[in-house]
Amino acid sequence: MRNFTIYDIYQRNALHSSSKTALVSGSQRINFAGLLEETEKLAYRLADAGIGKGDRLAVLAHNHPDFFLLFGAAAALGAIAVPINWRLSDPEIEFILKDCRPALLLTDEAQEKRIRETAKQNFPEIRICTMGTSGFGEIKGLRKYSGEKQADFPQISADDPFCLIYTAAVDGRPGGAVLSHGNVVYGNMQTAATMGLRGDETYLNMLPLFHITGLNLAMATLHMGGKNVLMPKFDEKQCLELTQAEKISIWGSFPPMLSRLCEAADAGTYDISSLRHVLGLDGPDQIRIFEEKTGATFWILYGQTETSGLVTFSPALEKAGSAGKPGFLTKVKIVDENENEVQRGEVGEITVQGPLVFQGFYQQEEKNRHTFRKDWHHTGDTGVLDEDGYLWFKGRKPEKELIKPGGENVYPAEVEAVILEHPAVKAVSVIGVPDPKFGEGIKAVCVLKEGESLTLKELGEFVAERIARYKKPQYAEFVAELPVKADGAVDREKVKEMYGK
Amino acid sequence: MRNFTIYDIYQRNALHSSSKTALVSGSQRINFAGLLEETEKLAYRLADAGIGKGDRLAVLAHNHPDFFLLFGAAAALGAIAVPINWRLSDPEIEFILKDCRPALLLTDEAQEKRIRETAKQNFPEIRICTMGTSGFGEIKGLRKYSGEKQADFPQISADDPFCLIYTAAVDGRPGGAVLSHGNVVYGNMQTAATMGLRGDETYLNMLPLFHITGLNLAMATLHMGGKNVLMPKFDEKQCLELTQAEKISIWGSFPPMLSRLCEAADAGTYDISSLRHVLGLDGPDQIRIFEEKTGATFWILYGQTETSGLVTFSPALEKAGSAGKPGFLTKVKIVDENENEVQRGEVGEITVQGPLVFQGFYQQEEKNRHTFRKDWHHTGDTGVLDEDGYLWFKGRKPEKELIKPGGENVYPAEVEAVILEHPAVKAVSVIGVPDPKFGEGIKAVCVLKEGESLTLKELGEFVAERIARYKKPQYAEFVAELPVKADGAVDREKVKEMYGK
Repeated sequence: MRNFTIYDIYQRNALHSSSKTALVSGSQRINFAGLLEETEKLAYRLADAGIGKGDRLAVLAHNHPDFFLLFGAAAALGAIAVPINWRLSDPEIEFILKDCRPALLLTDEAQEKRIRETAKQNFPEIRICTMGTSGFGEIKGLRKYSGEKQADFPQISADDPFCLIYTAAVDGRPGGAVLSHGNVVYGNMQTAATMGLRGDETYLNMLPLFHITGLNLAMATLHMGGKNVLMPKFDEKQCLELTQAEKISIWGSFPPMLSRLCEAADAGTYDISSLRHVLGLDGPDQIRIFEEKTGATFWILYGQTETSGLVTFSPALEKAGSAGKPGFLTKVKIVDENENEVQRGEVGEITVQGPLVFQGFYQQEEKNRHTFRKDWHHTGDTGVLDEDGYLWFKGRKPEKELIKPGGENVYPAEVEAVILEHPAVKAVSVIGVPDPKFGEGIKAVCVLKEGESLTLKELGEFVAERIARYKKPQYAEFVAELPVKADGAVDREKVKEMYGK
Repeated sequence: MRNFTIYDIYQRNALHSSSKTALVSGSQRINFAGLLEETEKLAYRLADAGIGKGDRLAVLAHNHPDFFLLFGAAAALGAIAVPINWRLSDPEIEFILKDCRPALLLTDEAQEKRIRETAKQNFPEIRICTMGTSGFGEIKGLRKYSGEKQADFPQISADDPFCLIYTAAVDGRPGGAVLSHGNVVYGNMQTAATMGLRGDETYLNMLPLFHITGLNLAMATLHMGGKNVLMPKFDEKQCLELTQAEKISIWGSFPPMLSRLCEAADAGTYDISSLRHVLGLDGPDQIRIFEEKTGATFWILYGQTETSGLVTFSPALEKAGSAGKPGFLTKVKIVDENENEVQRGEVGEITVQGPLVFQGFYQQEEKNRHTFRKDWHHTGDTGVLDEDGYLWFKGRKPEKELIKPGGENVYPAEVEAVILEHPAVKAVSVIGVPDPKFGEGIKAVCVLKEGESLTLKELGEFVAERIARYKKPQYAEFVAELPVKADGAVDREKVKEMYGK
């Protein structure tokens, strides 16, 4: 009786905002009554294919309007949506499929060939269906909706899982972060209340929907009865054109999007005065330029998939350089190695409580016990709370070294393992370096075997063939030796000091 | 780990908005750091007096800044706040005290004498403490805070009760509606997201804090890090002066407040341009006048204590005469006598689901089973959902006849029972009638015994001596006989038709 699920959002919008536009994708648009109808049709078709409560429903695709039908249908059935990053390599996708064993995988024309081959070899039991390019819910591989009256949808609780989003945990190994209906619903409420979102909001989906920030902004907009405009892939000109045509009020943006948008806006004549909020990561200088140009507010953030998205977020220039203040449903505590709260202004691990903390990693009880020790979620990130209550992000804990080029998560250890497979490489340390385009770039500091030679281009291609392309180094430096610690291990902090500028 | 309590609101504000003003009362003001400090001091003092988790803490007083300390302290201790309407008669208050058996009762100087006498006779076990008139937390009857380090506060879950607010249930008998921390926290989020409340909001507490609407607006403002300004009792001039001086942005208003405020504003020269939102009940004409005068938005509502406040609320003139659309965390279904959903546009009972549905009436399992039948909360009110998804309030179910003069709940059956005690009265039917001042007024349609006579004034005094003054009839009509139904019972609907204009 006190539950409120993602499917309830679809129902309430159909009931109370039926004729408002819900989704726009190219020349297609659908209102909230239509969205519920198409969503329920898809739910019945999925039920017909044997999908029920607790089953995993993977989706591997560029942003596509059927994502919204799938999210609603999964919610209605109590099935668990697993949106997968299409930029991952085949072995990485195989890892995810093996981990969560979906009953069905939805894909698009761009990914179909690739995933059918992978599945044929390794996952013959997964049913693969392909989303069409015209109309909503044109999915090949599912029987059409019969039109007959169907059984009621099962009772779903706010604590039931809604989706799994794979992200690397503190130990670097990818895990499916289980987000419940309550996690996402209260995430919507926190985002809406903090940013002051309204019913006339229009969000341009230029962030991918398999990323928590993209999902959070899309769902918060949907929850408020606003309009979602789809964009299959980021393109600055198309973004500006859509912003003008659809009177977009919200963007989500990770480097290098904003700088490219600013350049493209300067080069053309676009009316983007409808823009009110941009949420993302950029430096204060870029944000100043952008805000002066548009009058919109740039919201800076700290967040994780494991916290259903946003932990802290504030107008960026309220305290330039900080990551903002915690959202209205989020508690932040900075702790030392012994789990004691540090003094204000001191660095420690960022820990989080509140209804947005995820349910744990899918089927990884031991890891969850560690992550949730002392009844706080341990982010693996370090930060400082200043005297005004703003969070300053300080980095990752050594065991969770992470580089974030353009909002993606890249674990140095994973890239290092691939590079070490190269016959010319003797030793390597991969670090994050400031990058004017992506905010953070990937740099490999390599020691080559005697007599061997290697170029950045060769190294990059070697990595891109094995793991997602966005994980390949954009920078390389070939050195005679790497600094080591007393125990002989590479001293990553020293490497950063020496080669990280 | 996923809990978020009322005490967490106090803590987050002290951590992230420490120097912002939290409370203003006369010439006293306190920031969020100070509010947490005073709240924790009070919690330690209450713990010293033996108050612990689950104990009831009654408060019988006009609006007073210490309400906020009490709410936070009760939340920290897991004690249950019971704010009582001071306008109730002694027998009514005794009923409540007997029902919830508080360990301690906080009162103010105006109510002290009266409650001490009542308690001395009937509740010697209740400790009575009196809030002072200068400073925060100046409470007589509690030992001062020793300053020594205290034990940690107990672990409180979002489902633990935060307060009991007495209201008449569907059967007319008063019951303590149990609101959990989650109910109030998510009520805050719903109010803030729907109305678009911001961190710079300032709410004038002219509604009493023992009423759910007053509590909801005060708590939502507190949660957003806004400022609460106290007013012990409604006074239109003081309200306008405070609005100007403190740049008030939110009012809550029940008839006849708004018309009196409009008149007073016309008669004086007040700058109330800071006002953005007024939430309440008024007719469209009055609202139009008000909005034109101020530029603020009047939010019309339908709500109950049992739903933690607001079920529906929208800008009133979006659809004049309706009660607005459901909040973002609220599901509404209109059902017939057989619990089946009626067609759109048809009248039925308003039922509600969502995280704001209360936990039930305190220790009334049977009534709760009835109220929560079919897993929906049954409001006892009737309404219509129109094709645009707006709720239209239609009245109360016969068993829950209710008159609402100025936002108070008056049950005709209770008033009739008192009137029937009068030696001159043979039969009576009490109904609600339109009232220009209070929105709804109380009218007694009486049949007198042969040879007897009675005036409205005499009748009103007779009632006011026995139950709360606001329950006395403002109108009376003396008739030869009352219309009856086939079973001989008074036909209330006929009475309304004949005498209700």
